[in-house]
Amino acid sequence: MHTPSIDALLALTATDLVAVNTLIVEQMQSDVPLIPQLAAHLIMAGGKRIRPLLTLGSALLCGYQGTRHLNLAACVEFIHTATLLHDDVVDESDKRRGRETANTIWGNKASVLVGDYLFSRAFEGMVADGSLKVLGILSRASAVIAEGEVLQLSSMHNAYTTEAHYMAVIRAKTAALFAAATQVGAVVAEKSATEEQTLYDFGMNLGIAFQLADDALDYSGTAATGKTLGNDFAQGKVTLPVILALQQGDETEKSFWNNALSGAPLEDTAFTTAQQLLEKYQTVEATLTRARAFGAQAIENLEVFPDSPIKQALHDVVLFATERPY
Amino acid sequence: MHTPSIDALLALTATDLVAVNTLIVEQMQSDVPLIPQLAAHLIMAGGKRIRPLLTLGSALLCGYQGTRHLNLAACVEFIHTATLLHDDVVDESDKRRGRETANTIWGNKASVLVGDYLFSRAFEGMVADGSLKVLGILSRASAVIAEGEVLQLSSMHNAYTTEAHYMAVIRAKTAALFAAATQVGAVVAEKSATEEQTLYDFGMNLGIAFQLADDALDYSGTAATGKTLGNDFAQGKVTLPVILALQQGDETEKSFWNNALSGAPLEDTAFTTAQQLLEKYQTVEATLTRARAFGAQAIENLEVFPDSPIKQALHDVVLFATERPY
Repeated sequence: MHTPSIDALLALTATDLVAVNTLIVEQMQSDVPLIPQLAAHLIMAGGKRIRPLLTLGSALLCGYQGTRHLNLAACVEFIHTATLLHDDVVDESDKRRGRETANTIWGNKASVLVGDYLFSRAFEGMVADGSLKVLGILSRASAVIAEGEVLQLSSMHNAYTTEAHYMAVIRAKTAALFAAATQVGAVVAEKSATEEQTLYDFGMNLGIAFQLADDALDYSGTAATGKTLGNDFAQGKVTLPVILALQQGDETEKSFWNNALSGAPLEDTAFTTAQQLLEKYQTVEATLTRARAFGAQAIENLEVFPDSPIKQALHDVVLFATERPY
Repeated sequence: MHTPSIDALLALTATDLVAVNTLIVEQMQSDVPLIPQLAAHLIMAGGKRIRPLLTLGSALLCGYQGTRHLNLAACVEFIHTATLLHDDVVDESDKRRGRETANTIWGNKASVLVGDYLFSRAFEGMVADGSLKVLGILSRASAVIAEGEVLQLSSMHNAYTTEAHYMAVIRAKTAALFAAATQVGAVVAEKSATEEQTLYDFGMNLGIAFQLADDALDYSGTAATGKTLGNDFAQGKVTLPVILALQQGDETEKSFWNNALSGAPLEDTAFTTAQQLLEKYQTVEATLTRARAFGAQAIENLEVFPDSPIKQALHDVVLFATERPY
């Protein structure tokens, strides 16, 4: 079996993606120099553009022939970038995409405000597109993302976070924007309500799978993934691998998780201990299994569309999200 | 002469304002409890609702008979509240409206994210209204506000900030939303482009006047205004009273301003010294004089409208903004 990748999607949308990148660069400009500087740091840092790619891919899957999807893909990326900038403030994370965060270079203030600028620019882009329906979809997604982030915040440092709470958080903070990104592809193509709903569901299932795999990766990825290992743990963010390990743990282990996630200073060996406990209960694998189950649903969602290279490429994206090398 | 106040505007819009407050409470709800808690702390803290009042007043001035202005006034207040929440992160200010800020109680993270939620809810409210024109006006204003805040950030701690830079900052960070708030009143009433532009100009001039007076107040207000004196100075925010004093200062004074605004620890007497230097050059008065000049332009903008109680009430608001007791 070949290693799953997003290469086929990139190949099929290459011309469109170049156009999207041009729009992104144009729309992040401002007479205030710090804005494009800071925005470029994040936007040009070599992210995979997975969300705008999904808008492009969904539009293509729906046989769309116009150009609206280009601008809207740029808007989706701006919303995502704004949340990353605000998440940097929030999480005090040290690295994103393997580089210094904007926050460590320019400070909290600039990250918040440039995020606000990009968010406003996204809405200006949607207004230029002129569809109240698209504006409704993406403003709703933005509100849900913020709710998800606050929900996550309210369970930080709480080792006894439930699975249900965790799933609600990842649906809102991650999957809602994936779902909106794919739905918008169907909307510009003026497909039926059924196809629109199906693409929404596809994005939702893919987004959940993506975040589950990402949370597994935080405990078992390699430096090659460009992510700092153990970020979630260090921040006291309680994710599924931990929830599942704690459920099965004895009193000593429960006590370890409680202390380690409390926000108190960590011992040097704490992360290694955490990894050993996840290994003991195979919870990284269990998390990935769940990711694959949502991925399978996403693949099933695609079934209503006729076979085509773009359908196969979106299929590959799902596998890529859940089968990344760990 | 009677003390200028916003009482006449409050009286004329009382029923509408109650409806706006109801909408605000409804729209800030969320299944995530921290969101309405934190939002209520700020939104229900007894602010003057000056921006939504201006939308209501402008619509009334234009003879508008419908109800769209209620929802849009709530949207304007949400955008303002979101910027306040993000400004709290930014400025490390200790008090706003005489109470603890949300930030000091719930932390940076919550302020950023609840601000994002309210901002998204504002856009959802505009989508429900259904006017792309209004969406365009308020998304543009939001982008300009963010630019203004970043512009201000880029001149923090720089005692040699120019008047032109300062004026660009206050136009963007404050006056743009005043202008959008009043313009929207004309838009819902479907007035001519001329009247719409006139009300935009009215809001812009009033907003500039309001911010100039606010910046004067930071050096000469009394505790009764509910604002902590010396906030701008302590934060190294370079405002017009300082710019004008530094322009006229000798080398010793220039050196004082440079050190005091640099962000280095302040001596206990620093703020008193600053006030004495402003007094020496009468720059609080000069700032208020400039505020009154913009106020006079705002009053002139109103002249195209026939005399009426609402016109007189808006006139009073201008005087209130520039003649507050110091």
